Amino acid sequence: MAYFDQVGKIQYEGKDTQNPLAYKYYNPSEVVAGKTMEEHLRFAVAYWHTFTADGGDPFGSGTAVRSWDRLQGMDLAKARVEASFEFYDKLNVPYFCFHDRDIAPEGDTLQETNKNLDVIVAMIKEYMKTSKTKLLWNTANMFTNPRFTFGAATTSNADVYAYAAAQVKKGLETGLELGSENYVFWGGREGYESLLNTDMKLEQDNLARFYHMAVAYAKEIGYTGQFLIEPKPKEPTKHQYDFDAATTIAFLQTYGLQDHFKLNLEANHATLAGHTFEHELRVARINGMLGSIDANQGDLLLGWDTDEFPTDIHSVTLAMYEILKNGGLGSGGVNFDAKVRRNSFEPIDLFYAHIAGIDTFAKGLKVAAKLIEDGVFESIIDERYASFKSGIGADIVAGKADFKSLEAYALQNNPIQNVSGRLERIRFVLNEYIFNN
Amino acid sequence: MAYFDQVGKIQYEGKDTQNPLAYKYYNPSEVVAGKTMEEHLRFAVAYWHTFTADGGDPFGSGTAVRSWDRLQGMDLAKARVEASFEFYDKLNVPYFCFHDRDIAPEGDTLQETNKNLDVIVAMIKEYMKTSKTKLLWNTANMFTNPRFTFGAATTSNADVYAYAAAQVKKGLETGLELGSENYVFWGGREGYESLLNTDMKLEQDNLARFYHMAVAYAKEIGYTGQFLIEPKPKEPTKHQYDFDAATTIAFLQTYGLQDHFKLNLEANHATLAGHTFEHELRVARINGMLGSIDANQGDLLLGWDTDEFPTDIHSVTLAMYEILKNGGLGSGGVNFDAKVRRNSFEPIDLFYAHIAGIDTFAKGLKVAAKLIEDGVFESIIDERYASFKSGIGADIVAGKADFKSLEAYALQNNPIQNVSGRLERIRFVLNEYIFNN
Amino acid sequence: MAYFDQVGKIQYEGKDTQNPLAYKYYNPSEVVAGKTMEEHLRFAVAYWHTFTADGGDPFGSGTAVRSWDRLQGMDLAKARVEASFEFYDKLNVPYFCFHDRDIAPEGDTLQETNKNLDVIVAMIKEYMKTSKTKLLWNTANMFTNPRFTFGAATTSNADVYAYAAAQVKKGLETGLELGSENYVFWGGREGYESLLNTDMKLEQDNLARFYHMAVAYAKEIGYTGQFLIEPKPKEPTKHQYDFDAATTIAFLQTYGLQDHFKLNLEANHATLAGHTFEHELRVARINGMLGSIDANQGDLLLGWDTDEFPTDIHSVTLAMYEILKNGGLGSGGVNFDAKVRRNSFEPIDLFYAHIAGIDTFAKGLKVAAKLIEDGVFESIIDERYASFKSGIGADIVAGKADFKSLEAYALQNNPIQNVSGRLERIRFVLNEYIFNN
Amino acid sequence: MAYFDQVGKIQYEGKDTQNPLAYKYYNPSEVVAGKTMEEHLRFAVAYWHTFTADGGDPFGSGTAVRSWDRLQGMDLAKARVEASFEFYDKLNVPYFCFHDRDIAPEGDTLQETNKNLDVIVAMIKEYMKTSKTKLLWNTANMFTNPRFTFGAATTSNADVYAYAAAQVKKGLETGLELGSENYVFWGGREGYESLLNTDMKLEQDNLARFYHMAVAYAKEIGYTGQFLIEPKPKEPTKHQYDFDAATTIAFLQTYGLQDHFKLNLEANHATLAGHTFEHELRVARINGMLGSIDANQGDLLLGWDTDEFPTDIHSVTLAMYEILKNGGLGSGGVNFDAKVRRNSFEPIDLFYAHIAGIDTFAKGLKVAAKLIEDGVFESIIDERYASFKSGIGADIVAGKADFKSLEAYALQNNPIQNVSGRLERIRFVLNEYIFNN
Repeated sequence: MAYFDQVGKIQYEGKDTQNPLAYKYYNPSEVVAGKTMEEHLRFAVAYWHTFTADGGDPFGSGTAVRSWDRLQGMDLAKARVEASFEFYDKLNVPYFCFHDRDIAPEGDTLQETNKNLDVIVAMIKEYMKTSKTKLLWNTANMFTNPRFTFGAATTSNADVYAYAAAQVKKGLETGLELGSENYVFWGGREGYESLLNTDMKLEQDNLARFYHMAVAYAKEIGYTGQFLIEPKPKEPTKHQYDFDAATTIAFLQTYGLQDHFKLNLEANHATLAGHTFEHELRVARINGMLGSIDANQGDLLLGWDTDEFPTDIHSVTLAMYEILKNGGLGSGGVNFDAKVRRNSFEPIDLFYAHIAGIDTFAKGLKVAAKLIEDGVFESIIDERYASFKSGIGADIVAGKADFKSLEAYALQNNPIQNVSGRLERIRFVLNEYIFNN
Repeated sequence: MAYFDQVGKIQYEGKDTQNPLAYKYYNPSEVVAGKTMEEHLRFAVAYWHTFTADGGDPFGSGTAVRSWDRLQGMDLAKARVEASFEFYDKLNVPYFCFHDRDIAPEGDTLQETNKNLDVIVAMIKEYMKTSKTKLLWNTANMFTNPRFTFGAATTSNADVYAYAAAQVKKGLETGLELGSENYVFWGGREGYESLLNTDMKLEQDNLARFYHMAVAYAKEIGYTGQFLIEPKPKEPTKHQYDFDAATTIAFLQTYGLQDHFKLNLEANHATLAGHTFEHELRVARINGMLGSIDANQGDLLLGWDTDEFPTDIHSVTLAMYEILKNGGLGSGGVNFDAKVRRNSFEPIDLFYAHIAGIDTFAKGLKVAAKLIEDGVFESIIDERYASFKSGIGADIVAGKADFKSLEAYALQNNPIQNVSGRLERIRFVLNEYIFNN
Repeated sequence: MAYFDQVGKIQYEGKDTQNPLAYKYYNPSEVVAGKTMEEHLRFAVAYWHTFTADGGDPFGSGTAVRSWDRLQGMDLAKARVEASFEFYDKLNVPYFCFHDRDIAPEGDTLQETNKNLDVIVAMIKEYMKTSKTKLLWNTANMFTNPRFTFGAATTSNADVYAYAAAQVKKGLETGLELGSENYVFWGGREGYESLLNTDMKLEQDNLARFYHMAVAYAKEIGYTGQFLIEPKPKEPTKHQYDFDAATTIAFLQTYGLQDHFKLNLEANHATLAGHTFEHELRVARINGMLGSIDANQGDLLLGWDTDEFPTDIHSVTLAMYEILKNGGLGSGGVNFDAKVRRNSFEPIDLFYAHIAGIDTFAKGLKVAAKLIEDGVFESIIDERYASFKSGIGADIVAGKADFKSLEAYALQNNPIQNVSGRLERIRFVLNEYIFNN
Repeated sequence: MAYFDQVGKIQYEGKDTQNPLAYKYYNPSEVVAGKTMEEHLRFAVAYWHTFTADGGDPFGSGTAVRSWDRLQGMDLAKARVEASFEFYDKLNVPYFCFHDRDIAPEGDTLQETNKNLDVIVAMIKEYMKTSKTKLLWNTANMFTNPRFTFGAATTSNADVYAYAAAQVKKGLETGLELGSENYVFWGGREGYESLLNTDMKLEQDNLARFYHMAVAYAKEIGYTGQFLIEPKPKEPTKHQYDFDAATTIAFLQTYGLQDHFKLNLEANHATLAGHTFEHELRVARINGMLGSIDANQGDLLLGWDTDEFPTDIHSVTLAMYEILKNGGLGSGGVNFDAKVRRNSFEPIDLFYAHIAGIDTFAKGLKVAAKLIEDGVFESIIDERYASFKSGIGADIVAGKADFKSLEAYALQNNPIQNVSGRLERIRFVLNEYIFNN
């Protein structure tokens, strides 16, 4: 417990206190809408941003000051594990997430790499025995190593495809070993740089084959975690195949994979695709595909994935609204796929940032729960679509209408009256709920 | 023949002539890749931009100077029909396209509106008897009239839904009457302004019901034109349900409609969705959904649909490449959903603009055909993906591999070698084909 | 007083009441940071959006339902004036703003147009005698009429330039007559569609000449209102010369106009230019050019000017922070250059929308005042830049350092330590001020 | 000469040859518009992208395969110098450009760093004695090292400011030693992450002080290269102070620096700022500030600086048009601030990429020269603005008009006629010049 000496356990102190190292809104045991906050929110720390990354960007070296920085190789990997469990404990979060290469360094061969992984996985397993923190999901990093420059399951090189398969195989075994509740696929380089040299059809067929193999292997070994795909439209590639929720659903349906996967949706990926976060959540929800979320926020005036800690209460409230309407996230959770700014390089910034994100979600949960309790949007919707509950509207919904019956109705129904959508009023009401809850 | 006195028939004069009222690249009877240019390109004039629109924009009144502008009501509608057939003839194009409300004004009741439409449809039918120009597709304008402010088939008002059904019913009858080869759905307001007051699930269910009714009614009356959906991500609404090709495919699959529809893809809609035009065409092509195109171009530094006439030879060449690889567009064609700039308000600009677009597509066709004849991209693709034609790659494609066999292969296959994607070279080669063909 | 029968006077009722036709945060006489809210905020209603516009968009006809809609010509113009003063009174706002063509229709000649204007200006003057509402600013609409298709002061047609001069001359006379406190220039078409046919240098020279003439004529007639330029990067033109605050400052400096103008900054124009609203305000503030604001908000996922009523408390708080740090806006104010959504077409939506905007600014003012009172950002800044207050830093600021002295210092100063920028913590503190004030 | 064994000298072989390692358009000694191509184009290789970078991106390790990769420290630095001069020679380019840290590694202290630099500078100087290749410009990298995380001349830390001063001092001495024809300032981190913790005024004042010191020191040591500022709107920072050409001009004017600086404009930076490249060049040109260019291109559907090699002939032609109209670039040149794609990782891709860029500029030069020779745009401009050459227009331009004389003119001048801007026709003519020259 030597990594974050200056920080004690982060606990709820209520919204009036001045202590920056305390939760103001997140009280794990507080009951909201029938469940405790902890049950609702299932927060996870992202290993890569918090323990592996160094604050570097395309124009600059790492800035992060971490007490484990002087180490290398497996020593570094082990120190990070120690630090991570200290962090989870102090932050009081129930979950963490990792890519295979976050936790252990690659060796010269796949054998050696797997051996490194085995050592660290065993160490993590040991730590998990005495920690309340569990593994929300694990995944495979198939984008950093140069071999994946053309993709992994969509590579132009069959050798790389085989390597990726071996890596995900190991990932599923790791998930089984550590009890991960989900397994995530984010296709960082599953896409293309240019159509001029790309066989999109073959690449997508191969990707589908890869997913089918993953499904089969999970069944074979008895891994029962939920499979999740994380859409992102671009970056690092020019175009990623899992562009957004709808595109990913189209892909899964085309290849008969829709029953085996749900979506892990990220706020910043949504906005890069031209959508709000709540849009992506809604699309997934009404298609029965909402699995988990990556909680962060982007900067809508910038065109890249900034992965900022979420403090936009408006967006978070609407996200929590969709999640509550979904009946929660099931085996999924709220993973902070967020990094401290390059300029927030001190260890304590990791705490400030997570507290900011956690408190924002806690407040968002409370506001969303109150909105639902008061039926704010529900009553607006009921009223707006009332015409579909009786008469011609009910016939339409019941499948009893056709173009002829509708034309007959329309020809005698003149003029038509609409009612204002009242959006300005609704927006202000939403603000009032945020300010007053 | 009084509308475009100053213009004679536009004919091919070859690339060296200085005559601005002649085609430099488009020679209808010239054979390229086994078919005449006219057979390949099936150009259509968009009635709305060319005969109905006036050059207005959100900040300004119309600027267009047209000899039919002094007229009103049905007189105006009739004058436009006359002008349009003179225009098609002079331009020598084989097709036109329209929305119902482009060709005839609305009346006070649907009965009156339909009556107006009948008069003009009869007049068009008469003109078509002696014209070579046919109807590529027709569609219904269900976005201009205030009744459609919340959408048509996705409205919150059942009365509006019924009205829309009546309108499309009439549209299919019109298509049958005039022999349209396709019927298009563009959902200008089929989407939402805000999720706060929107029942997305009900709206999408209703949209699917609407499409099923359209399919049934077409069958009932014997209308055999291809149904096309035209994706667009936004504008006029904040979000349109048919965001892009992939999203539309997801929708069609979800509701069992995929066998009845193809896509009508527009260049400017592609870029508004964050895609290149060739991307959208490729997605449609490999899913067997490429039906027709709306030929135009946007300004990628502007965030709205500028509908400019296509002069970007790079984009057009890649579009024609996809179309040739698709074996053509079937019953579809190349519709100039493009408007002269507000500042190009003289009648002759309509000719200059269409000539620019037509010649750009003609040149694009020739370049694309030569690229295919020389197997430029095909040989690049063959070489890049060669590893999937034998050995482990062939096993993967044949479905004979699984995670265990792939892992076994990967464990003994070290190191992996990739080959450069060579994109800079390929891009320059593409330029050379454009400059030299 | 027949236009808004259903609405009584909008008054402060405190944040707990359920009455949607009351202010929750805006209490005109409440003192904040040493002045009343009314003195701070100087709200204005934009005549064009509220009384002239009809809810039309590029794809649809107007939807607005207004009791004056059945009228035409001067009768319509007069009815709007009546309605407007009823509206100002009920809303209890101290200012309004207009373009010349908002208030009176154009005639067939400039003479006739000016005559129409005179009638309405006289009527407005009469109303102002008994109203508390004054004219914050007036401006000339030199973008709607087709004559301005190539711009007004940057047109390629000298006749249009002369017409524009006549129009602004009349505008200054109108401002004098009605006591407008500012005169605004928004160059809706002062820019270009394409560089291919544009003489940018001549156009900008001519624009500068125009401004110099305006300055001279104002002096001649004794008009003492502040001249304001309103930057916008694009729309309707591809590129507008007054792209953003910095570009406009560059222009004014280049042509020696900087002492005669300040800036009228709009939130949605800022984001279209790739900036936050607070950025534009800061740039203007530190250059002594902050004159007035157009209060609205855009949708950052859309690429056009949506002119929504401002409800984003985060942005509004930071705007009010800049305004307070500027010592207020002087003769400027907070003009709601915002329109009700096309779907909010009922008269009462005009009230809901203005109340939402006014209350958001009132709350933003209170939060910003509290932030300043507590020195939140000021203490952060003081600490971060402390090194420039003594030693080598003080020498730098005092102009006593040069490259040689700095190098000498640097060579013996190793290593350098930075301190975290602490942004996540600061963002959360800002949220706390919003939630708790 | 061991680094690029497989490549001989790249020479002009004419446009018909199939040799991919030859110029098709660039013939250094060919005379175009009165000067040789080599005199016009003054190509430079960017040391950082070509010899220092490794193809890494935010999601992946370096992919570049270079024969010098196995080396480290000063050995690596020396190998790169050797390789670079072999490359310049084979490519036959007259210039190169570098940042200080590209050519030599940093040491533990500034003293050590400068010592490393001295060794490499001496080595480069020796190579330059026998090479035709000269130094177009040098600059200081003040963004990679963590010390610069808050900026260099706009840092919040006076110690960093002093360090930056020492670094630029050394840079000017290096420029003097190697005869660089320009010295460039690109403020990669001269901007802000957030306004919440930023003193923009102090930072900009300090930046101006820094530039004044640089001017003074250059004068002191007799360095006569042109000072250039390179605008960029964002990335790596959220906002950079030198946002675009106009913003930078505003800054220089505000601080009395405009006579000492010109602009180095980059295509990809232009588009990130929402402008075309030709726009930025035009703004600089008409303000007498066009100094040099960074030749590359971005992807307008991506929101970050992709620094692709320029193959967009349309953009390059218009850039060369502006440069020719500027009378050339003076001491500036055409620097390929462009990197091979991550997937183009083989050494030969460096040649393919530079050849593609060079040939595109050579063709662009020829097309632009022909456009000017034929007076294509000039005659369009002359005609469009003819009204400003006589009568009231001439009075306006001569400063003889005022609002009263213009109003008098306008009142008797009815109606006004405009002439079409003819943009579709003009665009097609431009295409024809590209295809046929």
